[in-house]
Amino acid sequence: MNPEQTQSLRRLFDGQRIGSLGTLHEGEPYVSMVPFALLPDASALVIHVSQLSPHTKDMVESPRVSLLVVTPDTADTPAQALARVTIRGRAEQYAASTPGYSAAQEAYLSLFPQAVSTFALPDFSLFAIRPLSIRFIAGFAQALTLTPTAFATALGKTPP
Amino acid sequence: MNPEQTQSLRRLFDGQRIGSLGTLHEGEPYVSMVPFALLPDASALVIHVSQLSPHTKDMVESPRVSLLVVTPDTADTPAQALARVTIRGRAEQYAASTPGYSAAQEAYLSLFPQAVSTFALPDFSLFAIRPLSIRFIAGFAQALTLTPTAFATALGKTPP
Repeated sequence: MNPEQTQSLRRLFDGQRIGSLGTLHEGEPYVSMVPFALLPDASALVIHVSQLSPHTKDMVESPRVSLLVVTPDTADTPAQALARVTIRGRAEQYAASTPGYSAAQEAYLSLFPQAVSTFALPDFSLFAIRPLSIRFIAGFAQALTLTPTAFATALGKTPP
Repeated sequence: MNPEQTQSLRRLFDGQRIGSLGTLHEGEPYVSMVPFALLPDASALVIHVSQLSPHTKDMVESPRVSLLVVTPDTADTPAQALARVTIRGRAEQYAASTPGYSAAQEAYLSLFPQAVSTFALPDFSLFAIRPLSIRFIAGFAQALTLTPTAFATALGKTPP
């Protein structure tokens, strides 16, 4: 990744708070919107989801998921040139006793303070999406494959 | 659907030109960004994709796909309240001889005129995503399931 691409990746994650989560649902792909936060070391993305949503059951049954993050759209950029990242990863449900639960909750609430009320509800739970491979499309004809380490190094504020 | 929800659905599709396509990739969900256009009768969404992209091969091998469209994000709306639609549908590749090819191409180019150059390339092709079921989340605690007919009636400018 060259410095411009690193900057583009950082801008993407600084500017975007929602992603598109792909889960396996009855054997088929299912895509739903999820607000997400990066852990400070960028080793995982954190989502907070309801048992009432199909994706939650899907992740428990089939933890291999995909998460797309697209830079906010602006009319002055051709749609095909929008920077975006597809993460293929593993969804891991946190229990309150899981190491890192508090840090994940803090990262999430720092972006979504109004979610504090849903943390009190028994049907909501926190999941980490741990990247296994990352495809970063920085723009036209600029597709890069990143390892989780390269991804975390480019984005992480603290070392993993 | 009440009139406010119909308006919300129309605003969503009037305001958004990109979607998140979920395909089955090596047995796992894979999510990628696609610019899309609605056919005038809203009977399908049209995308124009390259053979070089993983999703194209995925759709040929496994036509059951999912497409998420989220209303453009604004900082003044809580993320969980953003209107969005998840379409579960069937991907059908157009040949130039397929009935409706010209209408689909016209719908796509009217939104993405710069794509005219890619229509000349042999590795690009046009797919229709035909909705089988639609989940519309109009806002907090407003999840609706729509039939393809109800969806088309709400959005279509011409009857199917």
